[in-house]
Amino acid sequence: MAKYQYELKMKVRDYECDLQGIVNNANYQHYTEHCRHEFLLEKGISFSELHDKGIDAVVARITIDYKVPLRSRDEFVCRLRLERDGIKYVFFQDIYRLSDEKLCARARVDTVCVLNGQLMRACPELDAQLFDEE
Amino acid sequence: MAKYQYELKMKVRDYECDLQGIVNNANYQHYTEHCRHEFLLEKGISFSELHDKGIDAVVARITIDYKVPLRSRDEFVCRLRLERDGIKYVFFQDIYRLSDEKLCARARVDTVCVLNGQLMRACPELDAQLFDEE
Amino acid sequence: MAKYQYELKMKVRDYECDLQGIVNNANYQHYTEHCRHEFLLEKGISFSELHDKGIDAVVARITIDYKVPLRSRDEFVCRLRLERDGIKYVFFQDIYRLSDEKLCARARVDTVCVLNGQLMRACPELDAQLFDEE
Amino acid sequence: MAKYQYELKMKVRDYECDLQGIVNNANYQHYTEHCRHEFLLEKGISFSELHDKGIDAVVARITIDYKVPLRSRDEFVCRLRLERDGIKYVFFQDIYRLSDEKLCARARVDTVCVLNGQLMRACPELDAQLFDEE
Repeated sequence: MAKYQYELKMKVRDYECDLQGIVNNANYQHYTEHCRHEFLLEKGISFSELHDKGIDAVVARITIDYKVPLRSRDEFVCRLRLERDGIKYVFFQDIYRLSDEKLCARARVDTVCVLNGQLMRACPELDAQLFDEE
Repeated sequence: MAKYQYELKMKVRDYECDLQGIVNNANYQHYTEHCRHEFLLEKGISFSELHDKGIDAVVARITIDYKVPLRSRDEFVCRLRLERDGIKYVFFQDIYRLSDEKLCARARVDTVCVLNGQLMRACPELDAQLFDEE
Repeated sequence: MAKYQYELKMKVRDYECDLQGIVNNANYQHYTEHCRHEFLLEKGISFSELHDKGIDAVVARITIDYKVPLRSRDEFVCRLRLERDGIKYVFFQDIYRLSDEKLCARARVDTVCVLNGQLMRACPELDAQLFDEE
Repeated sequence: MAKYQYELKMKVRDYECDLQGIVNNANYQHYTEHCRHEFLLEKGISFSELHDKGIDAVVARITIDYKVPLRSRDEFVCRLRLERDGIKYVFFQDIYRLSDEKLCARARVDTVCVLNGQLMRACPELDAQLFDEE
């Protein structure tokens, strides 16, 4: 089994760096969100269209381990693996600096689906497209 | 006539500073937006409720003159004056550093109202509450 | 012993909300960062001055549990407790909605000090001011 | 003479959209900044290295006309032309939606160089690399 199912290359934008001269911690959360949404799109799932149908995929818990800071001009790749754990969709997402494949950040993101404010036991819209082909 | 109708005090948050050690330019736009929305709230107008009714107040043009950069720990005040100019609501917004009343940024923000995607000639919801008492 | 040592009141800014109409997850990280830095300032420690001396307090790990989403116009308070755990300064930070004291998010932030890129066993600058008075 | 000297393709990230479901105005400023810095890099000029030498290129004035809002999933291109006007480096930057080449935003960004806090009459570091080849 492949360790990752999807990856997205990005590059640090200078406005993402803070006065320490490194990417501000919150931006890693942005990076992982953007990577998840692009992964979902590739699977035919649009985060904004889901929202328009009343279904919101929301983060219940995030843990990020910060290993090596990204800096101005760094290119990096965000790699992703998805697992189903009960009612949760768990994304394992690791960010590597491209120049030397150094692991910069390791995230685990537990998400759940909410329909008009109510927690969903299962989200058939997601399951069909995310787990069908395995 | 008073030069300003409203003011909002804020303080620089460190994550708003970039690698130059000063508040990133785009954040001044955030400051002016937050100040406009708080001003509207004080007048009984909620930006998010307007949106839920299909009315969006949108920025058509913004000009910001950057005079003196804000830095970590600076407290500042955003002052605002509103004028009606044809179909436009024009906000004049100046940001002053509190410690010495130094003018840090001067913005002019032209906004218009859009109803379900169509430009509105006038927005009665806004006019009644914004210009009635004068 | 008080459960919290410090608290900071804030209010949601509309630009912090995303297309789901709720505060974007990454902004909770901004809220906790701003609260930590204000707490440190109250103790006489400036994050940006530390940086200028070559000392950077950096986040090694963050975990955030998202309970109830904050929305446009919500006022909230970020409460904080600090513990020392080996070389780590661990911040327990909870965000409550002010209108009903509902717990919105619960964060644990493990930070360490880095001097010119090297992990510090202890940071006397911080210890003296953070733990002296207890 | 070509109308633009440089262009950079990007894609909307969902966290850049606000509760109106469109890209928040301040993010266009981020887009233009990132485009300028990438343009400078292509010319051999690093914004962060300049800063480390004590030279800061800062925005003195920005004007943005918002024409058509960008939305979730939109791809766009930021095109740029640079002109020298006295001590100012003026960037003309237009953002087009890729799907239909619709003009979404038009920006004019006046920048100046500051050396250790003092306005520079000219910045030889920039001039040599930006205007040499024309």
